[in-house]
Amino acid sequence: MSKNNCLIGQSGGPTAVINASLKGIIDRVKASDIDNIYGMRYGIEGALAGNIIDLSQKNSKELNLFNNTPSSILGTCRYKIEDYDENEDDYHKLFNLMKELDIKYLFYIGGNDSMDTVYKLNNYAKEKNIDLKIMGVPKTIDNDLVGTDHCPGYGSAARYIATSVMEIARDSFVYDIKNVHIVEVMGRATGWLAASSILASTEKLYTPDLIYVPEMEFSTSDFVNDVKKKMEEKKAVTVVVSEGIKDKHGEYISADSSTEHDKFGHKKMGGAASVLAPFIKGNLCNRVKAIKFDVMQRAAAHCASGRDIEEAYLLGEKAVEAALLGESGLMTALKRLSNDPYKIEIIKIPAEKVANKVKLLPDKYINEENNRINEEFKDYVLPLIQGEAGVPYQNNLPNYSELDSLNEDLALRF
Amino acid sequence: MSKNNCLIGQSGGPTAVINASLKGIIDRVKASDIDNIYGMRYGIEGALAGNIIDLSQKNSKELNLFNNTPSSILGTCRYKIEDYDENEDDYHKLFNLMKELDIKYLFYIGGNDSMDTVYKLNNYAKEKNIDLKIMGVPKTIDNDLVGTDHCPGYGSAARYIATSVMEIARDSFVYDIKNVHIVEVMGRATGWLAASSILASTEKLYTPDLIYVPEMEFSTSDFVNDVKKKMEEKKAVTVVVSEGIKDKHGEYISADSSTEHDKFGHKKMGGAASVLAPFIKGNLCNRVKAIKFDVMQRAAAHCASGRDIEEAYLLGEKAVEAALLGESGLMTALKRLSNDPYKIEIIKIPAEKVANKVKLLPDKYINEENNRINEEFKDYVLPLIQGEAGVPYQNNLPNYSELDSLNEDLALRF
Repeated sequence: MSKNNCLIGQSGGPTAVINASLKGIIDRVKASDIDNIYGMRYGIEGALAGNIIDLSQKNSKELNLFNNTPSSILGTCRYKIEDYDENEDDYHKLFNLMKELDIKYLFYIGGNDSMDTVYKLNNYAKEKNIDLKIMGVPKTIDNDLVGTDHCPGYGSAARYIATSVMEIARDSFVYDIKNVHIVEVMGRATGWLAASSILASTEKLYTPDLIYVPEMEFSTSDFVNDVKKKMEEKKAVTVVVSEGIKDKHGEYISADSSTEHDKFGHKKMGGAASVLAPFIKGNLCNRVKAIKFDVMQRAAAHCASGRDIEEAYLLGEKAVEAALLGESGLMTALKRLSNDPYKIEIIKIPAEKVANKVKLLPDKYINEENNRINEEFKDYVLPLIQGEAGVPYQNNLPNYSELDSLNEDLALRF
Repeated sequence: MSKNNCLIGQSGGPTAVINASLKGIIDRVKASDIDNIYGMRYGIEGALAGNIIDLSQKNSKELNLFNNTPSSILGTCRYKIEDYDENEDDYHKLFNLMKELDIKYLFYIGGNDSMDTVYKLNNYAKEKNIDLKIMGVPKTIDNDLVGTDHCPGYGSAARYIATSVMEIARDSFVYDIKNVHIVEVMGRATGWLAASSILASTEKLYTPDLIYVPEMEFSTSDFVNDVKKKMEEKKAVTVVVSEGIKDKHGEYISADSSTEHDKFGHKKMGGAASVLAPFIKGNLCNRVKAIKFDVMQRAAAHCASGRDIEEAYLLGEKAVEAALLGESGLMTALKRLSNDPYKIEIIKIPAEKVANKVKLLPDKYINEENNRINEEFKDYVLPLIQGEAGVPYQNNLPNYSELDSLNEDLALRF
């Protein structure tokens, strides 16, 4: 008799809470009449290579670590499937694999590219009359998915960024020397992450002094003037920039470094902050630091927001419930009902409305001078960093999963 | 009638717990018959400029935040006073100021340079028959002071480094792509901080794969070979390097970048990791990240070790007790009595034995291949990262002091 199995995949950049969504899905599936739970290793790309893991085997001891373990436990990819009327190869491979595994439900946790995959696979299944329910679950620290108030992963990254900027700002005041700290955070297309640094600002400690996001047109000369003006008022100036800030021609500021080569003939590696720092150093002051939060901002589960974990879990769980009710081609999403008390509702939106789209930081949050974020943004972001993360500790270090799933030996191959 | 006052200073790089030592001193002084408590703003350098603050005015609400607030609340400096037989100017200025303020006790929290200051000032006072007791209190995330088992600030930095390396290592496994992460930590002369990353290694997740410290002779070709060999075994390789790794000529590896200029004619800013990354990228694999923990490793009080806070406090407190008993020219220090249960004793050593000296990471902790730290090092470092830090939270962000002390308006001037 044909089984009633499900397949789960993770896709795109990891977040601190993407495995909470995975756990939400697994827990809800286990409480249903679905038989086996399979996982794609390395997302759709891994699945196309027949790289599948049997998640039914996971014991609850390891599963219990999922809520607090950063990185994508199943592995992830950045892979775009073509339209099936242009190239059907991927569809053949994937649907054959799913037939072989008796997959009736597919859950895909990811961002706007992943929702494009959900949309396309769902269309194909409908067209070919294949019995498959496909649901998307949102995640991205970038917070730039349309149709949802915010994205799982963002609240935790925001908490990490705000906390670290608070600490850096305090550190910047210790020497009696003029100095500038330029902190670079992720966000290629949008400034949601950079904007969250406004949370570091308190009544007596105004910091960051300047925040630049990709939604602004960035000019290095305006930047130098902004910093100069701030330095006339205070000793230490803290600046936060999105990696994706662009000049008036739409060129990334960070591009200046990526085309340069060092004396070994190596391509220089850098980012927006390290390109900007030399405009200040030696010119306005001698102590300038370019700091990059790098992968820590998406992996720092020790600094996660409990609410973020909870919502990530819930969005996974509700995706299963929708699929069990026969829904397909949708993404679960968050609608904010009120801020005080904070209340959300889980809604579902067509994956096609999310696919390949980007939600920019609204103009109302950008100050008139185009060099900072308005304090009103706190009302939006503060509720998202709340709640105890409940990180389990062992020897005062986080007890994270050891990623058995990524151990080559455990993989099934098809 | 002459008062019986004390003066406190902080010096050298900040740590996550240097203000716990300050609080230990203040609390103990308040329980004594010492009248007023003054603070040097920006250490001895600030004091020489007459930059003094009255700490007796601090209310307990602000004082209570000191244990958990990073950065040097009094401000700090890197200033070396000359020998008084070569130049007595600084001594005249400082001792005149102290006479004017009726200072009978001086407490100086710092590293080996600061203990040089303690030693010199104490000698001068003795020679001139000045009634002044001077005590040093150790601090440095570098952990390189002689005469003490470990240094306040180190345990917290070690906990931050281990936690962050655990997170980075997990993040490195998510894509099915060969990759190398090179993490640079502080440590110009010694590898204690880099060595602490060994704590990230668990039974099933061997990471970091390679650790390089200044105590080893570093060769970029050996490094490339080491990484190559690791990459044959596994997909993701994590490397930790001290900023101060040096080649066989004693030249800093990071020096390669600091002499380079970019197309704006700006001096390139970089570090060991960003110099090493291009040796791998494009050669052994295309995904290489150079990550620098920068000031976060000394400022991340949200990740502090409770034991570190407690010991920092105790070392401050005991310095006051020693001074009240008439001792002078000493530094309080830690002697480890046993590891299980962890027991320490506070001892006192002559500041001159600490001054300008550096304690290297012992050979026994360095592996035979000169490319990693032996697991035995965990026995040394693990006890130092234990204990609840008790960070106070407000809106799920750390409730740090807003550094009123560094507010220019509050300063007394002499």
